[in-house]
Amino acid sequence: MTTAIDLSEKLKAFSDTFAPRTVAQFNGHDVMVVKAEGPFIWHTYDDTDDFFLVLKGTLDLELRDGTVTLGPGQMFVVPKGVEHRPVARGEVHLLLIEPTGTPNTGDVSTASRRQLG
Amino acid sequence: MTTAIDLSEKLKAFSDTFAPRTVAQFNGHDVMVVKAEGPFIWHTYDDTDDFFLVLKGTLDLELRDGTVTLGPGQMFVVPKGVEHRPVARGEVHLLLIEPTGTPNTGDVSTASRRQLG
Repeated sequence: MTTAIDLSEKLKAFSDTFAPRTVAQFNGHDVMVVKAEGPFIWHTYDDTDDFFLVLKGTLDLELRDGTVTLGPGQMFVVPKGVEHRPVARGEVHLLLIEPTGTPNTGDVSTASRRQLG
Repeated sequence: MTTAIDLSEKLKAFSDTFAPRTVAQFNGHDVMVVKAEGPFIWHTYDDTDDFFLVLKGTLDLELRDGTVTLGPGQMFVVPKGVEHRPVARGEVHLLLIEPTGTPNTGDVSTASRRQLG
């Protein structure tokens, strides 16, 4: 497919939160957009770093030793094994990258439903 | 390090073109920002997909079977093995992701100098 992937357009296509949509594949990873609002849960990935880029709004990325606050155009990579909790101040739009098939809490039993779209 | 990575700030720190700066590491990849102006060269990566997200300006991503035009907030992944030539209309700012150590033309002998910063 030789068409630009417009992240805003992809985000306009849905309204539910904490349900990432895959928009592209890259080296065994899913490139995803997601809407977040309020707190997610504390979680840890044992096998992968966790990539966050804020497209809209403000995200507090709580770590056990401090909080990283991200606005639009700001990013952070949570290293694997580091527990974290994303907390969205109002509605936040994010670009996420994770290995294809990763449950969104690092644990299948607690993962939210992931819809591909 | 628990500090937000501000992509605009990183881009303000240099002015040379086609010289990506690594701003983060993610699962064995370099996350990089780069300024582009005018045409780069035709090149192919045999071992990796090539991730482009436009932060500012307009990029024509020429493929042998068509051109993908990307504006701010638009992205594209060139699959591995697919020849391509980025052509920047004026100054363009990009987020790139590539496996750490990848020469920026897919070929060490023709790669531009990469500065880490």
